[in-house]
Amino acid sequence: MQRFCTLSFVLGLILMVFGLTYLLPVLTAFLYDDGMAQYFLDGMLINIGAGGFLAVISLPWRSEVKNRDGYLLVAFFWGLMASAATLPLMWGIPNLSFTDAFFETMSGFTTTGATVLVGLDQLAPSLNLWRHELNWIGGLGIIVLAVAVLPLLGVGGMQLYKAEIAGPVKDSKITPRITETARLLWLVYAGITLLCILCLKLAGMGWFDAVCHAFATLALGGFSTHDASIGYFDSVSIELVLTVFMLISAINFATHYTALFRRSFKPYLADPETITMLGLIAASILICAGYLDYFNVYGDFFIGLRHVTFNLISIATDCGFVSVDYDKWPSFVPWWMLYLSCITASTGSTGGGIKLFRALLLWKQAGRELFAILHPRAIRPIRIGDTLVANKIIFAVLAFIFLYFISVVVMTFTLIIAGLDPISALSAILACINNAGPGLHQVGPATNFSSLNDFQTWICSIAMLLGRLEVFTLIILCTPSFWKN
Amino acid sequence: MQRFCTLSFVLGLILMVFGLTYLLPVLTAFLYDDGMAQYFLDGMLINIGAGGFLAVISLPWRSEVKNRDGYLLVAFFWGLMASAATLPLMWGIPNLSFTDAFFETMSGFTTTGATVLVGLDQLAPSLNLWRHELNWIGGLGIIVLAVAVLPLLGVGGMQLYKAEIAGPVKDSKITPRITETARLLWLVYAGITLLCILCLKLAGMGWFDAVCHAFATLALGGFSTHDASIGYFDSVSIELVLTVFMLISAINFATHYTALFRRSFKPYLADPETITMLGLIAASILICAGYLDYFNVYGDFFIGLRHVTFNLISIATDCGFVSVDYDKWPSFVPWWMLYLSCITASTGSTGGGIKLFRALLLWKQAGRELFAILHPRAIRPIRIGDTLVANKIIFAVLAFIFLYFISVVVMTFTLIIAGLDPISALSAILACINNAGPGLHQVGPATNFSSLNDFQTWICSIAMLLGRLEVFTLIILCTPSFWKN
Ligand SMILES: [K+]
Ligand SMILES: [K+]
Repeated sequence: MQRFCTLSFVLGLILMVFGLTYLLPVLTAFLYDDGMAQYFLDGMLINIGAGGFLAVISLPWRSEVKNRDGYLLVAFFWGLMASAATLPLMWGIPNLSFTDAFFETMSGFTTTGATVLVGLDQLAPSLNLWRHELNWIGGLGIIVLAVAVLPLLGVGGMQLYKAEIAGPVKDSKITPRITETARLLWLVYAGITLLCILCLKLAGMGWFDAVCHAFATLALGGFSTHDASIGYFDSVSIELVLTVFMLISAINFATHYTALFRRSFKPYLADPETITMLGLIAASILICAGYLDYFNVYGDFFIGLRHVTFNLISIATDCGFVSVDYDKWPSFVPWWMLYLSCITASTGSTGGGIKLFRALLLWKQAGRELFAILHPRAIRPIRIGDTLVANKIIFAVLAFIFLYFISVVVMTFTLIIAGLDPISALSAILACINNAGPGLHQVGPATNFSSLNDFQTWICSIAMLLGRLEVFTLIILCTPSFWKN
Repeated sequence: MQRFCTLSFVLGLILMVFGLTYLLPVLTAFLYDDGMAQYFLDGMLINIGAGGFLAVISLPWRSEVKNRDGYLLVAFFWGLMASAATLPLMWGIPNLSFTDAFFETMSGFTTTGATVLVGLDQLAPSLNLWRHELNWIGGLGIIVLAVAVLPLLGVGGMQLYKAEIAGPVKDSKITPRITETARLLWLVYAGITLLCILCLKLAGMGWFDAVCHAFATLALGGFSTHDASIGYFDSVSIELVLTVFMLISAINFATHYTALFRRSFKPYLADPETITMLGLIAASILICAGYLDYFNVYGDFFIGLRHVTFNLISIATDCGFVSVDYDKWPSFVPWWMLYLSCITASTGSTGGGIKLFRALLLWKQAGRELFAILHPRAIRPIRIGDTLVANKIIFAVLAFIFLYFISVVVMTFTLIIAGLDPISALSAILACINNAGPGLHQVGPATNFSSLNDFQTWICSIAMLLGRLEVFTLIILCTPSFWKN
């Protein structure tokens, strides 16, 4: 009971704060006079009211948040926010089902950026801004989750990153630590977002599009205000700006914080994920552009290079902007992009998937095992950067990757059973669990997720949440031993 | 130099012994007067001559076989046998390229059973028997490898099975142990093969087909004397006999030996792989047959059940016989079959893939990790059956699965780059690395591997060998640290 009240108190507070985020679309609605103001005001009141009610009734029985409640809190946080955020969409868009609205808001919050809406160009500005704001808030939530919460919970080897951003906070209690970390990261995140808005404006976007796309870029969310995504602008300079900021967002924000704090580039060079990511992406771009040139897809190497650079980085970092229909390229390139989306993003970034440090660790562990076969008595520790990695963490990482893989297999088969073709099914699940956005074929870059039926849509919504919460957090709630004691 | 001579001495001896196996096709050639006798006699002489030469020149410098030479020996054994065995095929089949002949013999030796030959029904009987004999010899080789050699080398957690069949052999030297184990297993293997021949004859096959298909069944090789594979016979009783013997062959032959030795069924019940395999297959058959019925594929549940039972067991156990074109079924079923082919076969059986004990171990490790997150201080050991599994072995198993997975990804991308469509590419690599046989689409059950170009064919040949040698054995030869010292 006490546990339940603590949870509902915290969630109530969060709902109230979340209510304040409705102010931005309310302002937009007044500014553009798009007739949505009332819906957003109603939504805001419901959020603040419901949140306040929850907080007040559970106030007398609340206590300190315990580690184990963290799992429930995190899962409820994303689920509840996504549900609450559907209200303006359902009131503002005729005939939108709850299934589709929930998919859209979950896609926003998890920064997946897959959409079921068609006609984005004609959508009321405030609704479009709302979608992009969800991306942005979700992105901030993920950074805080990855840097402050998951390492404490010990999910999937994240304890490797424990105390990395410790800085000024020495308190071991969970709440003040999370609050302080969130405050610092929020400043970095907001600062880079402002910079991105300015650069996009300079590159030729209007203010409204610049704000929306900057939100989607920093969060690596990938929502756009146009059905054709970035293809709508057909502008090299916009693509360049987005490319730079997507790469920035795919780097650990704790590293950004440290670099800014020390006014030095060294933290980036010392971050093994950053270096590996840039190398991996550069090599992939060259190979894929060469491959397109070999098949003479665009008749010109540099046109191919431009499109590969933008779309490959967008998918690899799990952003999900699209500028051309890359599903039509020779299959190697789109599949390689999909593969990169599983591993490229860094821990503590707004990207999704397995994360580069886990892939690196897996790789080193396999090398160690080969060595061990030849030298059974030798002991060779594993290092990531300068950090010695304990066996315990390696086990946690391997278990994470296994659960991730099993989730992909099970959900892909579920979509196939539900009637999707195997390529669409696998690519949809990968796009969702990696929070990348577009898949291939039926859910490819030229289309979106609107053709899925309700059941398939729910599976995809679950995949997005599962990926965002690093698989473990959600799966642990389904084990009997979580509910014992 | 001494190391090289030891290797060449052993390989020379093996080549000489292998020469004797040409006697069976020589007899067949005389019996059916198919004009191939001379080719096989020439092949036999070349084998015995070359083997004898190798053995004699390296005789003075040879020494005891060391553990580390085991990797080279095993890799050379399969490569050399497959090369030698191409001779009669290349002489006997007009216009057969070395690439295709090597694929065919490698497919035989690794008990993959994928074929590039069209017109099997018209092929000289001695050539068909030769293909099936390669299956059978390869199957025996694999059992010995898995039960006696790999546990000593400590490949992919196989040390878990070390000394399981110890029985009468107490000598710790590698050669006598392998020899004795091979002798015992060979008796079991040959005995069950005889039984299978008799049952197939009783079920309605001619003697020749019965011998050939029994060879292919016990080895889980899956070669057939007919282009339509088992579909040619269209006989429920033949399918039933094959089903029973495929299941028998997918069980650890060390378990068979123990059961026969003690005249008891208990060893099967005590073998966690056997129990799990039967449960997994039974559940899969029911679900898939229900699924076909739901889509009304055959209009009758029991016709669907018959075809699912035979084809699913054939693919899951990595045998690869086919009775209908299951590629035309709703995609869930063929993909599920392909998935089962990765994990279903037991260690020490003639099947391929990851093996059930590794999948079980991975599953338990993930469960342990979930438990560890909730109870960070608790220590929970992992058991397979009654055996406590050391962390060292879990690491080895996880590394195996990772290398297997990376191999699948790399080779699939290689085939896609080489122009194959993604589904054909992935299914071809899975069919080859699991030593299962047929893939989907271009390499599906209604066709075969003959449409692949030379490069693609070589990639598939490598995949077969890689899978058969449990990935590690081959990859370790590519590490610099193997060649140091
Ligand atoms: K995204
Ligand atoms: K096979």
